[in-house]
Amino acid sequence: MTEEIYDIIVLGGGAGGVPAAIRAAQLGGKVAVIESKDFGGQCMNRGCIPFGHMMVASNIVGSLSLGKDMGLQFNEVSKDYSALVKRQNELIVFMRQGVRGMLSKNKIEVIEGRGRIAKKGNVEVNGKNLLYKKIILATGAQWLQPEFPGANLEEVVNTDSLLTADILPKRVLLFGRSPWLIEIAQFLNRFGTHTILTTQEDTILSDESKTITTRLRKVLKIEGIVIKTQAEILNATRKGDDLTVDLNSKDGRETLVVDRVITIERAAALKDLGLKSIKLDEDSEYIAVNNKMETGTKGVYAIGDLTGLQSQHYSHLASEMGIIAAENAMGKDASLNPRTSTRILFTQPEVACVGLTPKEAKNAGYDVMVGAAPLSMNPFGMIIAENEGIVEVVAEKRHGEVLGVHFIGTAASEMAGQAVLAIQMEATLDDLARAPFPHPTLSESLAEAARDALGKPIYLP
Amino acid sequence: MTEEIYDIIVLGGGAGGVPAAIRAAQLGGKVAVIESKDFGGQCMNRGCIPFGHMMVASNIVGSLSLGKDMGLQFNEVSKDYSALVKRQNELIVFMRQGVRGMLSKNKIEVIEGRGRIAKKGNVEVNGKNLLYKKIILATGAQWLQPEFPGANLEEVVNTDSLLTADILPKRVLLFGRSPWLIEIAQFLNRFGTHTILTTQEDTILSDESKTITTRLRKVLKIEGIVIKTQAEILNATRKGDDLTVDLNSKDGRETLVVDRVITIERAAALKDLGLKSIKLDEDSEYIAVNNKMETGTKGVYAIGDLTGLQSQHYSHLASEMGIIAAENAMGKDASLNPRTSTRILFTQPEVACVGLTPKEAKNAGYDVMVGAAPLSMNPFGMIIAENEGIVEVVAEKRHGEVLGVHFIGTAASEMAGQAVLAIQMEATLDDLARAPFPHPTLSESLAEAARDALGKPIYLP
Repeated sequence: MTEEIYDIIVLGGGAGGVPAAIRAAQLGGKVAVIESKDFGGQCMNRGCIPFGHMMVASNIVGSLSLGKDMGLQFNEVSKDYSALVKRQNELIVFMRQGVRGMLSKNKIEVIEGRGRIAKKGNVEVNGKNLLYKKIILATGAQWLQPEFPGANLEEVVNTDSLLTADILPKRVLLFGRSPWLIEIAQFLNRFGTHTILTTQEDTILSDESKTITTRLRKVLKIEGIVIKTQAEILNATRKGDDLTVDLNSKDGRETLVVDRVITIERAAALKDLGLKSIKLDEDSEYIAVNNKMETGTKGVYAIGDLTGLQSQHYSHLASEMGIIAAENAMGKDASLNPRTSTRILFTQPEVACVGLTPKEAKNAGYDVMVGAAPLSMNPFGMIIAENEGIVEVVAEKRHGEVLGVHFIGTAASEMAGQAVLAIQMEATLDDLARAPFPHPTLSESLAEAARDALGKPIYLP
Repeated sequence: MTEEIYDIIVLGGGAGGVPAAIRAAQLGGKVAVIESKDFGGQCMNRGCIPFGHMMVASNIVGSLSLGKDMGLQFNEVSKDYSALVKRQNELIVFMRQGVRGMLSKNKIEVIEGRGRIAKKGNVEVNGKNLLYKKIILATGAQWLQPEFPGANLEEVVNTDSLLTADILPKRVLLFGRSPWLIEIAQFLNRFGTHTILTTQEDTILSDESKTITTRLRKVLKIEGIVIKTQAEILNATRKGDDLTVDLNSKDGRETLVVDRVITIERAAALKDLGLKSIKLDEDSEYIAVNNKMETGTKGVYAIGDLTGLQSQHYSHLASEMGIIAAENAMGKDASLNPRTSTRILFTQPEVACVGLTPKEAKNAGYDVMVGAAPLSMNPFGMIIAENEGIVEVVAEKRHGEVLGVHFIGTAASEMAGQAVLAIQMEATLDDLARAPFPHPTLSESLAEAARDALGKPIYLP
């Protein structure tokens, strides 16, 4: 009996694995994708989609105060959390079917089960062995259980707990360094939960430009979110209905009483993949890849959350890596430009950061030019009361090439696309300064920020 | 007595004149700007800003139904139009002060009065004569009074009438070919006015891609706006409190009873500028300019609404022209790329069209490739129920160069910026197909539309 050989096996059917499989099939490959849980992965089932859905609801709540200033009068808004969860669960079911449809349309073999590399060229799944020429590892990341005393209490949970609840806890302490935590904090706070946002870092979004983080922090504080930095949970104990948390932070040691602790720490899912059999280290923090998504072992590619620390866990990065891995595995020559990847927050205001911060650019040895245009000076920004919004542009002096763009404001997630294209196309400050963005839009401030970097803003006071 | 000679006189302090004056001053020019009415012009005082403000309120009203689907419960929303008008009037006053500040900061002479060219190099204003080396004409456009019998009734008005009212009329017939009319129709309808939208054209937005216009028309009809095309107002008569309008349209002849007729026809404001004295024709429809904003007379530049038919009356185009005219007048070499200008509608969904439609591209002799990605297939689009949204990309086959991008959907006005940059930077379909737009955003559909044009969509069913 001759066994079938797949050109490509993709291990993991999430935000990275699915486009990887489709792209490989488009290029003529015989492809199988193996998923042990839900197609669509963390992003579609327990990440971007359900929490993105919550953020839309949260933003509608936020927009009501602007509406009131504009003469729209609403009575008390009641919030039916179970209806929100029901709608998003229906959406997820629909999207999962969509993923099945795309895989089927592209004639990709779909295998449900836990895949494990048995030896080079051989994956074991559901008791069978599948042969492959090349493999793309895309198993994502998983939650890390925290380790403080009391971390095993049932009130110490991860974000999944929000996806099945009918009502929200009244008092929550959030802990971790993920940007995602900030979204959840705003959502919970707007939906009536007393919210304490804590992080071990010196500031929220510690990797981003200060221009952005100070403004975001201000907005969150005005909304009533308590923020604690340089924080460590010393222990948690249950007393009746209360969860008592001892916290050390920049503000000193204190005891907080909440209903839930939600932690967000994730790490690459390297275990039980059989990595040793193909000479990869399953004890490292993640699988290192080059910009072609090649691992240290020939014919083995890795993509997505598996390939980096939590700060790189973005599903659009996983998708991009998936397409690049598929193309290279199928004999093409594609590579990743790390500067075009967006770090994003669907808070209100949204945050989107693309490319280098001023500090990173200096550290990389560039002679740096920085310009900024506050959205409070932008006509559309004035209309929608964008008091804390800003666009910051970072460039190098020699050619004026744009190295980074950082947005905080409404629709920053969509404006990020301009930064992605600008950096991808190697645009200069002159290119941005001259771009005739339509009026009245917030995008106009991108051109103005570039003109500011060049020392010639037109509309800034 | 020696008279002062200005390097540049700008006639008109609107969306085009103000940046023209500032840019000329930045380049070292001694500059005066002459404005007969309000600095900021039509756009700031009676156009983009107040109506953009109304559209934001209108969009908040529209977002409530999505909120309801997400479990947010609102009681009846009441709409206080006078509060809306009060807020926008305050904004306009603030912005006008901002314009004064910018002009002053740049040491530009500000002259309030009606300027008229007395002879070459000489402008008469407030009884004085000012000398100039070069002049930039930026007097904009003005309303055209319609000519049907009854057009002089006080119930036949232009859009200015909405800016001073405390309450909205109950029944309105809108007539004209301006895209702006469609925004106003949606606003009025959402604020409780029975709205009939009529145009002499075969369809609303007759110059745009059918992909866009059919979807927009569907949305407007679902909302309850009555649309009549190939329309002509035969006459209007007042009967008691009613305004009776005889209308001929594609639907035949009918008599409609309303409270107001609002018409939007605008034409370049050429009269009384003294154009003859500098050998320009004041009887033509507009002042023709080349892509350097040069008129037929040396040293005379013209920009903005003065230089084209109503379909080109966009303030961002005026601003861009202003900067280009100023640079050329100051000895630089700048030119306009007409393909990067956005035609835009702040309706819900928004519409933004940049560059050539498929039809225009074919007529221009290109071998055309078209791709599209409906937002109903986009993950974020699914979350926000973007049922009618779509992104369409038009390119030429030889190099894959992008010729046009057309959006209908939420935040299209901001996504337009990507199209502006793509066309400005001469991006190809491959560039767009590979752009790693963040997830989950509507921008992802721009990459997918490009992949669709290339025959390899990843996420389309």
